[in-house]
Amino acid sequence: MPSTKRKIINDPVYGFITINHPLIFDIIAHPYYQRLRRIHQMAMAHLVYPGAVHTRLHHSLGAYHLMCQAVTELRSKGADISDEEDVAVKAAILLHDIGHGPFSHALENRLAPGIHHEVLSLGIMHELNRCLDGRLTLAIDIFTNKYHKLFLHQLISSQLDMDRMDYLTRDSFFTGVSEGVIGYDRILKMLLVHNNELMVEEKGIYSVEKFLIARRQMYWQVYLHKTVLSAEKMLKKIIERARDIYSTEDACIRTYSALDYFLSGEFDGTINAHSMEAFCSMDDADVTFAIKRWSKHPDIALSTLCTSLLNRKLLRCVIQGEPFDETILTKHRQEVAAKLEISENDASYLVFAGEAVNTTYNPGTEDINIYFKSGAVKNISQVDNPLIHQTLSTPVKKFYFCTLA
Amino acid sequence: MPSTKRKIINDPVYGFITINHPLIFDIIAHPYYQRLRRIHQMAMAHLVYPGAVHTRLHHSLGAYHLMCQAVTELRSKGADISDEEDVAVKAAILLHDIGHGPFSHALENRLAPGIHHEVLSLGIMHELNRCLDGRLTLAIDIFTNKYHKLFLHQLISSQLDMDRMDYLTRDSFFTGVSEGVIGYDRILKMLLVHNNELMVEEKGIYSVEKFLIARRQMYWQVYLHKTVLSAEKMLKKIIERARDIYSTEDACIRTYSALDYFLSGEFDGTINAHSMEAFCSMDDADVTFAIKRWSKHPDIALSTLCTSLLNRKLLRCVIQGEPFDETILTKHRQEVAAKLEISENDASYLVFAGEAVNTTYNPGTEDINIYFKSGAVKNISQVDNPLIHQTLSTPVKKFYFCTLA
Amino acid sequence: MPSTKRKIINDPVYGFITINHPLIFDIIAHPYYQRLRRIHQMAMAHLVYPGAVHTRLHHSLGAYHLMCQAVTELRSKGADISDEEDVAVKAAILLHDIGHGPFSHALENRLAPGIHHEVLSLGIMHELNRCLDGRLTLAIDIFTNKYHKLFLHQLISSQLDMDRMDYLTRDSFFTGVSEGVIGYDRILKMLLVHNNELMVEEKGIYSVEKFLIARRQMYWQVYLHKTVLSAEKMLKKIIERARDIYSTEDACIRTYSALDYFLSGEFDGTINAHSMEAFCSMDDADVTFAIKRWSKHPDIALSTLCTSLLNRKLLRCVIQGEPFDETILTKHRQEVAAKLEISENDASYLVFAGEAVNTTYNPGTEDINIYFKSGAVKNISQVDNPLIHQTLSTPVKKFYFCTLA
Amino acid sequence: MPSTKRKIINDPVYGFITINHPLIFDIIAHPYYQRLRRIHQMAMAHLVYPGAVHTRLHHSLGAYHLMCQAVTELRSKGADISDEEDVAVKAAILLHDIGHGPFSHALENRLAPGIHHEVLSLGIMHELNRCLDGRLTLAIDIFTNKYHKLFLHQLISSQLDMDRMDYLTRDSFFTGVSEGVIGYDRILKMLLVHNNELMVEEKGIYSVEKFLIARRQMYWQVYLHKTVLSAEKMLKKIIERARDIYSTEDACIRTYSALDYFLSGEFDGTINAHSMEAFCSMDDADVTFAIKRWSKHPDIALSTLCTSLLNRKLLRCVIQGEPFDETILTKHRQEVAAKLEISENDASYLVFAGEAVNTTYNPGTEDINIYFKSGAVKNISQVDNPLIHQTLSTPVKKFYFCTLA
Repeated sequence: MPSTKRKIINDPVYGFITINHPLIFDIIAHPYYQRLRRIHQMAMAHLVYPGAVHTRLHHSLGAYHLMCQAVTELRSKGADISDEEDVAVKAAILLHDIGHGPFSHALENRLAPGIHHEVLSLGIMHELNRCLDGRLTLAIDIFTNKYHKLFLHQLISSQLDMDRMDYLTRDSFFTGVSEGVIGYDRILKMLLVHNNELMVEEKGIYSVEKFLIARRQMYWQVYLHKTVLSAEKMLKKIIERARDIYSTEDACIRTYSALDYFLSGEFDGTINAHSMEAFCSMDDADVTFAIKRWSKHPDIALSTLCTSLLNRKLLRCVIQGEPFDETILTKHRQEVAAKLEISENDASYLVFAGEAVNTTYNPGTEDINIYFKSGAVKNISQVDNPLIHQTLSTPVKKFYFCTLA
Repeated sequence: MPSTKRKIINDPVYGFITINHPLIFDIIAHPYYQRLRRIHQMAMAHLVYPGAVHTRLHHSLGAYHLMCQAVTELRSKGADISDEEDVAVKAAILLHDIGHGPFSHALENRLAPGIHHEVLSLGIMHELNRCLDGRLTLAIDIFTNKYHKLFLHQLISSQLDMDRMDYLTRDSFFTGVSEGVIGYDRILKMLLVHNNELMVEEKGIYSVEKFLIARRQMYWQVYLHKTVLSAEKMLKKIIERARDIYSTEDACIRTYSALDYFLSGEFDGTINAHSMEAFCSMDDADVTFAIKRWSKHPDIALSTLCTSLLNRKLLRCVIQGEPFDETILTKHRQEVAAKLEISENDASYLVFAGEAVNTTYNPGTEDINIYFKSGAVKNISQVDNPLIHQTLSTPVKKFYFCTLA
Repeated sequence: MPSTKRKIINDPVYGFITINHPLIFDIIAHPYYQRLRRIHQMAMAHLVYPGAVHTRLHHSLGAYHLMCQAVTELRSKGADISDEEDVAVKAAILLHDIGHGPFSHALENRLAPGIHHEVLSLGIMHELNRCLDGRLTLAIDIFTNKYHKLFLHQLISSQLDMDRMDYLTRDSFFTGVSEGVIGYDRILKMLLVHNNELMVEEKGIYSVEKFLIARRQMYWQVYLHKTVLSAEKMLKKIIERARDIYSTEDACIRTYSALDYFLSGEFDGTINAHSMEAFCSMDDADVTFAIKRWSKHPDIALSTLCTSLLNRKLLRCVIQGEPFDETILTKHRQEVAAKLEISENDASYLVFAGEAVNTTYNPGTEDINIYFKSGAVKNISQVDNPLIHQTLSTPVKKFYFCTLA
Repeated sequence: MPSTKRKIINDPVYGFITINHPLIFDIIAHPYYQRLRRIHQMAMAHLVYPGAVHTRLHHSLGAYHLMCQAVTELRSKGADISDEEDVAVKAAILLHDIGHGPFSHALENRLAPGIHHEVLSLGIMHELNRCLDGRLTLAIDIFTNKYHKLFLHQLISSQLDMDRMDYLTRDSFFTGVSEGVIGYDRILKMLLVHNNELMVEEKGIYSVEKFLIARRQMYWQVYLHKTVLSAEKMLKKIIERARDIYSTEDACIRTYSALDYFLSGEFDGTINAHSMEAFCSMDDADVTFAIKRWSKHPDIALSTLCTSLLNRKLLRCVIQGEPFDETILTKHRQEVAAKLEISENDASYLVFAGEAVNTTYNPGTEDINIYFKSGAVKNISQVDNPLIHQTLSTPVKKFYFCTLA
């Protein structure tokens, strides 16, 4: 019988995820990691795709699973990966999202303004490293790209990293949107290391093409679906409005959770033990609970947004290729202000516009390198492949307009 | 172009769910129905099966979808179902779980003691019926089995109803437990109406056998998995303890939600507009929020349970075929009491035992009738089929014991 | 119980296919249709993708199933389709491939030179129509686009017909090439009839984009995979060589099947009862049997091709973007001629080159029309959609070169 | 880049199958192995399940893939498997079906009477071993259970061997019969080696239960489906009849393939180079070709069987729990004899009866051992598990009766 502790976890996406190293066990068992159970991976997308209620914890376990497969594959092709590096790169991917707050990207920069989730992730990793007696040091070096083996970092953060590979696969699985299915297993089999960099074998070109197109499709069909966009913008506006009117004398605005610390202005932008502890105590339940409370708040802009979001009476949203005329915005704001008997400024929380951008593939900044049997290496956009060359590398910008119906 | 409003919803389990009747739209749009988005279908099972975070809303939409298929199938075989009955039976299945509270079965009888969720469902249906100008009257008659076409009721509540068909399919999909997969589509194709009752064609016997065995397997492998059981018992104990020590003077026990109404004793068991309104304002977020608050409550039994559940440091659970010896229970209670410096009575929230029963198939009370080409009808347990006859109809009782590790 | 005969067929791709009309039963039961069981859908693709052994019968049943769904969908949106048209369009799709000969497209124009499979299909349909007392007349009118409801013909033959929808879905299923998966169910839900034409709803644009790209990917990754291409060209060359050297005095070339009629020159290109009977008596088994026999034929070119194909020692194949230099071809022919001690002309059966073309989307000849909520109709290439506009409508031509290794 | 040759094969069932050892390459490239491409895995089952046209080659590749996973799993749990044993056990499973003839089990004992396919497999393995310079010696020792590590043999031949695991999974995949789906990946994860034997971990009990029930269901629903049974019995009768009337003077009975050698009596039961060569030159195409020829043979019994099978006008088949009365058989034979103007003896090829037996689990002969955490080992039928204990170990015998309709 095996001497090492070993656990398998059922995953509807990949079948089984195996955990067989003490460090991985210890990370998963930590309350900071367990908190990710209470954060939706796709924020408000479930209002359109009812199956999309999976969590950040599930996603990061999935990315870890793909990393296990990638390491096995690369080693079988002769890549030099020591046992220590093996566990470090797995620990790093497991922790890559540890800094996400409630409703992740939808509230990014809203609860702790100006602080990107990767900064928080890093702060929390350092804290965890202390708890785990320095066993995360190599993982952190790989995560921050300070380690000399570049390809290990690329497995965690690049065009074809395990993060994207899992979220596309998982999000398309749970939404049921078949357009987002990628052949992750085939791409993994096509990976190799050459000149210290992660590359794809020549015969994997079509799989990479498929991957890039699937990503594009998920953006327009799911992540930037007009109803999802409306709901997530409403969530942002709720937090903005609550912050604007927050007062310690207003009992109704109080949330009885760490949200108060972030909304009241008590948090001054410094990342320290105290603020990190506060941040790590928040999850989706606190925000949902607050929204339920605020749905009865006397401030009409706030309570309207909260009630509407709870009952899925979302703001009407239009998306188009050109910017919206400012006069339309003004006209709607005036109407809403009149209807609800609020100021035009307050109405701007219920009537607003903005832009959504998506670039599928960014040659230059983040390349996908193709390795040819001949020994040559080409950036995928240089390969004779019109689909990626001409089209996918152009950013697509669209404009949205949301208003109370 | 179609004149009727028509909507399709992506479902990873069935592909697409179509909604094309105003009444179905109106039910789904109602806040009471939208509340089901915030109630997990499988309570705490996601602590073992991370994918199992799907909601009651998703399940009831799925059951509705199967009902659509069942009606089409039965009509194609000549069953007499009018358009009015068609929409009524669909409305009824959509609403069959409307009375579930936070964490559904795991907290059943705990928040509103002595009141079964089907009673609440019925109360809420009557309330909705008022809002919807009596358009639910036939649906309610079918739900309560007062309508003369028995088979319509059986589609909603019987051994082979759309509820079970969906929850087995959906729960096995989201947990990734392939042992629970049933051939729901084949069973649907085998249904027929004979003598006003729902039956299964002879050549569907193996599919029914598979269905019964899948149910048995889901019970032992998932629903009564020792870790899931431990977590759900802890949840029950948390509510019990909170109720026991609840005092309006204790600011720390207060939850700032309708939970207070049910825990404080203000709710006297009467189902009326007020209590139903309170009930319908609760969801999983309130309980999760309360648990987070209580994890810092001075009562050690309560805070220990809450902290442990939040961080997935669950009570150790053992399951066996015979009852546990009372002396073991006592011994563990004394140890825990000593360790935490609490009374033995308080320790009983952290050390307890009980029994779990599962009967796969209950001949007599709820029959599955098989229709033979010859015109004969037999109860499935009378068919020459040793698997169901001898085995599945015996109830299986097991005993559990949970204790602080 | 139902009065009509009704049958369900298990299909791993769609679940269950339902047959419930006497005409459909009678078509399927006919020996001409049953013959399609013995013809591979994907000719030699199984030499690369071992699962790709599905048959023309299975494909046409699948296309029939999609037609059932399409008709239901279109009717639910108000399209005017009578019961007679319903069964006719289903019969037509069931029969659309009835004229395929052994190894379908791979031997097209080789066994009966100059005669396209759709001409044969039509001839066989007329013959079947006689057997079935004229019950196929409307189906034939729709098939040949003589019926006034254009959209019925488009369901059978257009960019988005049920034929393509099924073969992409089915071929990607049986090959296991996930890149070819299309969201057929979503496209079906987006179809509608407007101005007597088949169109796609605006919100189906991304699904159509996915469909076109999946087709492109299947072409390059599967249908024109260099090894598949090599095997199918070898098959062609085998038949060509056998025809060239066929002599009624050569006992070894004789195949003891209707192949003899087509190879010997007895068939003079006339389609009549006799030639059609002969054609319909052939299937893959005859050709495979002939190849096994010919693998021992004294003609070296023929026996080399046959032995190599049987044992999967295929000709080496190179594919590139530019034409191959004639001198390379000559050089290889001379080498092979010398090695096998045959003439250069004979060696040309073992060393040859050619071109493979694929256009994903052909604006002008076959349009995909998008119906906008506003009532506007646009060709998909006119929609602001750079992926289809710029790229997919350009034909891609590649060049292959095959030679004995 | 990797130095070793490495190939991946798309498999719709498992995703990708990796081949990375020269011996495995050489086996697969051999004509004896390639012949398995032309033998259906499920004989005539495709007449009921049109997708079931997969081949013996595909099945043995799949079993090889599962073996790769099993070895990885067992090694990770500390099982002692050397690199030489690793490749040997994989070679052995790849070759386990090499001795199957045309239509495998359906014609077993018919073409080469009295010779089981495992004897032929062994003969062919020895022949291959000569071609491959003795590199198969260890594989053969494991296959014939002469090697001291019993568990390696058990991976190839036992209740839970990779053969059964693959054929259940693959057959249920290609038929689309969800009742046969087993959790092969979970069972593999539960395997371990203890006392030199293959065992299953305690928590894998339900997966094994599921496996046994799935097998039972596949038998009754697919393998012994009355229509499949009818077709396969017809195939047997065709060969029997052809052998009975075979005469070298009858030009019409001649098949122009090695079938002649086996039907004419030239084969005397001796396994030698010549007979094995003849055997290995046969595949499904020869038998199909012969049936097509014989459908025009003057012998009425033979031509009736052949025409009926080709056109899927199968003998009517009844299955019941008790033996059929001999008088019914006689009565039908007389009717058929009169109708076709043939002798009663000849009619017995068109009217016949027999029995079909299936035991799901055979305690005693082939045990499944469960390893408990406590260190104890129990046969699964001794575990407190009524489903397997009481029911599955009883053989089920049914009786069939086939007659010309």
